[in-house]
Order: sequence, then structure tokens, then C-alpha cells
Amino acid sequence: MLTVKRLDAADARFVIDAAATKAREIGVPMCIAVTDEGGNLIAFERMDGGKVTSITIAIDKSYTASAAKKATHEYGEISQPGAPAYGIGSAIGGRLMVVGGGLPITVDGEVVGGIGVSSGTPAQDREVAQAGVDAVTSGS
Amino acid sequence: MLTVKRLDAADARFVIDAAATKAREIGVPMCIAVTDEGGNLIAFERMDGGKVTSITIAIDKSYTASAAKKATHEYGEISQPGAPAYGIGSAIGGRLMVVGGGLPITVDGEVVGGIGVSSGTPAQDREVAQAGVDAVTSGS
Amino acid sequence: MLTVKRLDAADARFVIDAAATKAREIGVPMCIAVTDEGGNLIAFERMDGGKVTSITIAIDKSYTASAAKKATHEYGEISQPGAPAYGIGSAIGGRLMVVGGGLPITVDGEVVGGIGVSSGTPAQDREVAQAGVDAVTSGS
Amino acid sequence: MLTVKRLDAADARFVIDAAATKAREIGVPMCIAVTDEGGNLIAFERMDGGKVTSITIAIDKSYTASAAKKATHEYGEISQPGAPAYGIGSAIGGRLMVVGGGLPITVDGEVVGGIGVSSGTPAQDREVAQAGVDAVTSGS
Repeated sequence: MLTVKRLDAADARFVIDAAATKAREIGVPMCIAVTDEGGNLIAFERMDGGKVTSITIAIDKSYTASAAKKATHEYGEISQPGAPAYGIGSAIGGRLMVVGGGLPITVDGEVVGGIGVSSGTPAQDREVAQAGVDAVTSGS
Repeated sequence: MLTVKRLDAADARFVIDAAATKAREIGVPMCIAVTDEGGNLIAFERMDGGKVTSITIAIDKSYTASAAKKATHEYGEISQPGAPAYGIGSAIGGRLMVVGGGLPITVDGEVVGGIGVSSGTPAQDREVAQAGVDAVTSGS
Repeated sequence: MLTVKRLDAADARFVIDAAATKAREIGVPMCIAVTDEGGNLIAFERMDGGKVTSITIAIDKSYTASAAKKATHEYGEISQPGAPAYGIGSAIGGRLMVVGGGLPITVDGEVVGGIGVSSGTPAQDREVAQAGVDAVTSGS
Repeated sequence: MLTVKRLDAADARFVIDAAATKAREIGVPMCIAVTDEGGNLIAFERMDGGKVTSITIAIDKSYTASAAKKATHEYGEISQPGAPAYGIGSAIGGRLMVVGGGLPITVDGEVVGGIGVSSGTPAQDREVAQAGVDAVTSGS
């Protein structure tokens, strides 16, 4: 029997709030999703001005990062033409995201969930996602 | 050009919090989604213990209620065998929900969004959704 | 080699305008779609106030009526529990519509396209669709 | 509560007519779609000779441009191998289009909808889409 640790609903809201604070700081309204370690959505927020296309993209970045235990920008690197995971970005009906902005959330060496952010540039999305990760892992 | 009113992110969180309070009161952890008047997701929360299947169901109930401007339980009534809208429940890839728990949110006679709730019985889902609606419309 | 007759773009707009005129007459803003005899969309209009869910539903009603050469309300009758086509409404990813409002357009005994209407009751949708059919077939 | 502006049905037809005029001028029959600011379809026309594959592509280009508030050819540039948004083109089940021909329609600094054009080369599609945009924004 396995015992798994995962983010709870309060953790998810805490992560979203930290990410949204960073989004406001850099002036880019974002879609922010938090998933559990199985890739299933716990919480989501589209800030006023966040893009409609980014609803699905943020959820799928978080899904990818948590369920694959890998940052989406890392998939971006290994899925370039000629690289080993080339083509992985259309897997799972396109849900496997290879664009930066999805990060796993790791506590005590274990992936307990993930965050996905979308609406800015991939660099901005990643910065905001990192703020969410830091909020939950800085004290652990 | 049309001018439309829609829920903002703060409204959506307010609706979710009111619904979650009712869910705790009746002792059933829920998935709760809030969409804008175009059916696009604004916010979502899966309470601890909410069902994984209910993630999509809550989102689709909210989508249906806001985008069709009709409560999902009303679709349930008119889509029974022999009734006029029989079969509508498999439309839009199954996204059109005919199970209770999705309600439009109407302010000043205009649908400005919707709420979808899932994890309990349809009656419980509907009761929790109504608490979310009441929170935003009681003062209007 | 086959030679097929099908509605052209001008016909499709003519059908939509006739249907929209009827929709205004009965006071229900509609989504109206016209497809060719292969089920492929030629033209679509969402009148102001037409439902967002009805975009897909109108297109799929027209697809069904033209590509299956059968009115969607006829599918409703033969897909009731115990009837021969029971269950057909979830075919093709739910695209096969069994709710009234989709009608084939027949000229000289040949199906040359179809119309799908959604946003009202199935009876209203069907009445508006019929006005579209009549416009193109009354003189033929 | 937010207040948003969006194209109405008459605007959408006006945009399509302007784009179709340009399409005839360059001699390429097109599929032309117009969506609202939430990405939902308002109107569509497949000119005689427009491609069947382009039905979905035009709709998805318009969806992308309006809902992401970005021209699809810009996504093409930033999603090249090695570029930051590499791989974004398979997001949302492939609906996020990175091929030119989708443009947001902006009025008074606000995205109020979008247009998507397909059947020609991407450069032709973009030229025709631009004619649609110009028609509605030239006076603003």
C-alpha cells in the first residue's frame, strides 16, 4: 500500500495567492492552476484580464508538471527537433505542455502537486509559477 | 457593438466561498466552478474530499448554466425520454450537463456568469450552487 | 463519377436570412447554421442574444440533418428507449443530434444541404429551421 | 463586475463582407470566421471554393486571435524551434493556431473579437483577415 502526500485545498489557494501577488507585481494578469500529484485540478483562478486560451493552457501546464514530475520548460528543451523527446508536445491530445510556466511542487523530495501559469511570455509565466512554488516550499 | 456585464475574479471567489460554506454546513466536500457569461472558467476549487470526476462535471455544469442561460436541472426535466429535448445531454461532446447543480447567475435581468457544483447528490449539488448564487444576487 | 448538387454560399446566406427573419418574428434570437450535402459548414450566424452552447448544437443539428438526410426530430422519435435507434444520440462524439431543429434541404428530390437552429425550445428551433428550408425550396 | 465590449452580429457580417471582398479581389475563395472577445463564434462563411479543412482552421484562428489577444502569425514566430513558445501550437487540442490568418479586432484599446481566414497561403489569409479588421477599426 502506498501513502502519498499531496497539496490540500488550502495549500492550493495559498499557492495561487502567492503567484497572483507576483503577477500583479510584474503587471501581467494570469491564469493560474494548481493540481495534485495525480495531475488532477485542485484550484484555478483567471485574474481579470487573463486570457481565455490560457485557461486550458495553465491547467495543462500544471497537469504536465505534477503528473510527469518535470517542469514544462524542461520538456521544451528535450523536445526540440533532433532532441530525444521530439514530438512529445502533441501527446495526450496536446495536454502535455512543453512551454515554460508549469512547475512541479516538491516537498521533502516528493512531488506533491504542481502549478501552471499562462497569459504572459513563457518567461513571465515561469517567474509567476516559481513564486507559487516558493510560497509552499520555502519553509519546508 | 454590444456591451455585456460579467463576473470578475473577486466575484467568482466570493461565490465559491459562499458555496463552500454551505457545502461544509451539509457535510459534503464539493468541486465548485464559476464561469463567465460566455461559459469560460473564472475560478475553481476542489474541496478536500471532492471527487476527481466532479472536476470536469462541475466545470461543465457551470459552462452549461452560464452559456445556455438555463439551470442544468431544467435540462434534466426537458430531456427525459419522450420530452422535447431528449438526447440533449450528449451534445457538445457531453459538455451540456442535464444533471442538477449548475445555475446561471443573473444580475439586473442579465446572465453575468454561472456556478457548477458536483460531488454530492444532484439535490445537494443544487443546494450548494444556490448558496453561491444567493451570495452574489441577494443584494441586487 | 457522381455529380452532386449542393447549396452555394449565396443560398446559405439566403437560408440564414429567412430563418433569422422568422426568429425575430417569434422573438427568439437564434444560432443558425447551414451545411452542404456532405455535412460541412457553409455559413453560420449567432444572432445577438443567441446562446453560446447553441453554436455547436446548431452546427451539429445541420450536420446531422444534411449528412444523414434526416430531420433531427425524426431521430428523436426513433432513439427513444426501446426504439430501434436508441443510443444513436451519443454517436460521432455526440455530434449526431436527436433534438428538433435540424432539417435537410431537398431540391428536386435530392438533399443539397441542411439547416440547424438552436437557442429556443426544440419546437421554436424547428419552426425557424423550416422557414429557412421554405425559402430555398418554395420556388423549386 | 466587469463591463466588456464585443462585436455584435451586424459587425461580424460587416467584417466578413469586407474580408470576402478582398478575397475576391485577390482571387482566392476563403473560409472566414468572426468570434467575440471570449473566443465564441459569431459568424462564419465558406465562399464557393473555400476548403473544407479550412472551416475548422478559420474558426480556430479566430478563436486564438480573439481569446489570446494575439495575431496567429505572431505565435508562429515565437513558436519556432528554439523560440520561447515552441510547442504551443498543439495546445488546447490543437485549437491554438500558430499559422498566419488570425487577427484580434481592437477598438479603443480593447479586444472586442477576432477574425480568422483560411484557404490561401498564410500571407493571403493574413491579407484578407486584415481587410476585415480594417473595415471595423478604420473609423475608430
